[in-house]
Amino acid sequence: MSDVNKNFLPNGFWVNGIHCGIKRSKNRDLGLFYSFSPCIASGVFTSNQIKSASVLISQKHIRNKIRCIVANSGCANTATGKLGLRDAITMCDYVSKFIGFNESNSVLVASTGVIGEYLPMDKIKQGLEKLCNYLIDKKPYSINNAAESIMTTDTVPKIVSSKYNIGNSEIKIISFAKGSGMIHPSMATFLCFILTDCNISKRILDHALKSVVNNTFNMLSIDGVTSTNDTVFCLANGSAGNKKITEYNNDYRKFYLHLNYVCSEISKKIVSDGEGATKLIEINVINAKTKNDAKKIAEKIATSPLVKTAFFGNDANWGRVLTAVGMSGVRINPSKIDIYFNNYCLCKNSQLLDFSEKKVKKILDNKKVNITVDLHTGKEKIKYYTCDLSFDYVKINAHYRT
Amino acid sequence: MSDVNKNFLPNGFWVNGIHCGIKRSKNRDLGLFYSFSPCIASGVFTSNQIKSASVLISQKHIRNKIRCIVANSGCANTATGKLGLRDAITMCDYVSKFIGFNESNSVLVASTGVIGEYLPMDKIKQGLEKLCNYLIDKKPYSINNAAESIMTTDTVPKIVSSKYNIGNSEIKIISFAKGSGMIHPSMATFLCFILTDCNISKRILDHALKSVVNNTFNMLSIDGVTSTNDTVFCLANGSAGNKKITEYNNDYRKFYLHLNYVCSEISKKIVSDGEGATKLIEINVINAKTKNDAKKIAEKIATSPLVKTAFFGNDANWGRVLTAVGMSGVRINPSKIDIYFNNYCLCKNSQLLDFSEKKVKKILDNKKVNITVDLHTGKEKIKYYTCDLSFDYVKINAHYRT
Repeated sequence: MSDVNKNFLPNGFWVNGIHCGIKRSKNRDLGLFYSFSPCIASGVFTSNQIKSASVLISQKHIRNKIRCIVANSGCANTATGKLGLRDAITMCDYVSKFIGFNESNSVLVASTGVIGEYLPMDKIKQGLEKLCNYLIDKKPYSINNAAESIMTTDTVPKIVSSKYNIGNSEIKIISFAKGSGMIHPSMATFLCFILTDCNISKRILDHALKSVVNNTFNMLSIDGVTSTNDTVFCLANGSAGNKKITEYNNDYRKFYLHLNYVCSEISKKIVSDGEGATKLIEINVINAKTKNDAKKIAEKIATSPLVKTAFFGNDANWGRVLTAVGMSGVRINPSKIDIYFNNYCLCKNSQLLDFSEKKVKKILDNKKVNITVDLHTGKEKIKYYTCDLSFDYVKINAHYRT
Repeated sequence: MSDVNKNFLPNGFWVNGIHCGIKRSKNRDLGLFYSFSPCIASGVFTSNQIKSASVLISQKHIRNKIRCIVANSGCANTATGKLGLRDAITMCDYVSKFIGFNESNSVLVASTGVIGEYLPMDKIKQGLEKLCNYLIDKKPYSINNAAESIMTTDTVPKIVSSKYNIGNSEIKIISFAKGSGMIHPSMATFLCFILTDCNISKRILDHALKSVVNNTFNMLSIDGVTSTNDTVFCLANGSAGNKKITEYNNDYRKFYLHLNYVCSEISKKIVSDGEGATKLIEINVINAKTKNDAKKIAEKIATSPLVKTAFFGNDANWGRVLTAVGMSGVRINPSKIDIYFNNYCLCKNSQLLDFSEKKVKKILDNKKVNITVDLHTGKEKIKYYTCDLSFDYVKINAHYRT
């Protein structure tokens, strides 16, 4: 696809991020993702019934043509009642006023951070004025600053981009994401903003995004918690000048492939940077009756604290994987389960094998480990990502507010 | 009911435990719970589809009149295939042979410990011979040794007893339990052996046990994992000489009350001794539409690693409780949730209150904290227990096998 370490912004976009004072640290906490022309926009939002005010406002605005996303970190604007809703709307108002396009309902808003605190609107107003002036004064965009502005407990900014051609038009896609705790389907499970200059219809973009999210962001878990603020936005401004994609043709398939690539790569970055994670764990459930069965079983393995702590300790405790398989609620054949770590079989027909402890230690020493569970009940399979559970997960989360 | 620190064995029973060499440490790992006369027996077993060989054998034997329970710790006898089944049967054979009652299918067997290892049958044979000789030689029983013989990561033996009168007959009940990790409904979630000298019919005992288990052991979670070995046995030998309980009369209600007491007290002991736990968390979900709704929500709170780490850190992060409420799948009114810690309100109508951080710190400093969630959607309520998630949980579980 393209070098994941070399990122490029699609045509017609400008992005940046600053520190305005929401976070007590000096880290960036306010970001702007702007398009010079109106965009087609798609969104996928948290399935949690408790929703951030930002989510509620963006769910309304996304029906319109979109000019930009304004995002803050350090405060989730959740459990803030009517005042929170007004604050989210005010953020959109400020941006449209300061830039001067005067349509505040063409702004999407996203927030991430502590639940149960009000946004410091004075600081946000000052910050947005500064950030919008960067744009008006034609200061250069900064992909990195924009990515940093949405970080909370993330240790690295998460950016993936890709480019390809349709005819003579070069299409670019970039995806910015944050998320390392409260990560779990069902749904997008964090903030992810995807910008593309592809010319595509809203109906087709909606379809592509929904499908890609199901294959990528809904197939990972860090701690089994679906946050109140999860949001994926995809903005397409058409600046690449390709023939508009309005049906499921070859141009669509190419676009889909690259959208899937940026989402799937960013998924792995998210899990690798899971709070306190020392290991990326890829779970393959194979030969299941249905994809849904496979997913349910993978999810039980991915959320078992016993499996996750054993991987942290490099302990070849495959019995905990077997236990998770048995408690998923999916009908299995209890005497026909095979378990592999990196293709090395530890358990055949639900029974221990005389494996080499040394060989398994070597496998577990890797930064990435594959678990494969063969159910022998059908032909479907899925891939799911999680990370280990370490001392640092507890440390990070024991004092998040204070 | 009775002093929980002063335990007494019901009439006609003998219990003890020794070290036979299954554990690498010198701790007790083999226990015998014997009745001098045949017992009515009830059992509740794990809902995990992957079951220990001991569970599979005991599920068969429990239909018979029962003479004793033989139990080992240090090895779960799970994922051990046909050899594991033979070993479980052999354990029953040894006991009946050494004691001399020659009905091996009147022995129940239970195992707990590492999954995916075979039982060391030579050591078990020697150990059982020694243990049975204690009984034959009329050595005194030891409630404490018996309780210790089923411990794994437990830090204290768990015993609760109770006594009361029916007419002139004194009825005693004692319950022995082990469990501090892999603790989660749905089901008994650990080993628990209840002995009583009450005279009661099997049908009535089955009914009482099932109902009590639902109210006690199925209302707690330490780490959301249902083990492959969970078992509750209740043995009643009738030695108290009371008029046999054969219907749901006052005698039944008294018995039920005391059975519920020993199970509910031992539940709290289990959670307080949860792996690495520093706090007992009591979750009250009130004003729910149905009990099942209330339970689902309590379970989401009890299994949220974010809630549990915040309690470990004494961080008043009620937002994580609210998040868990929103992701339970139960239809709620998202703007009508109230949250209390020890009756102190932190969140009203899903919105933050200006609470005293100092006051909440003082609440969180306690060894026991109550969370109350008011849903305002109905009139049902439940009580659920969990513990916090600490560094020590990770430490204990990172190297369990090795």
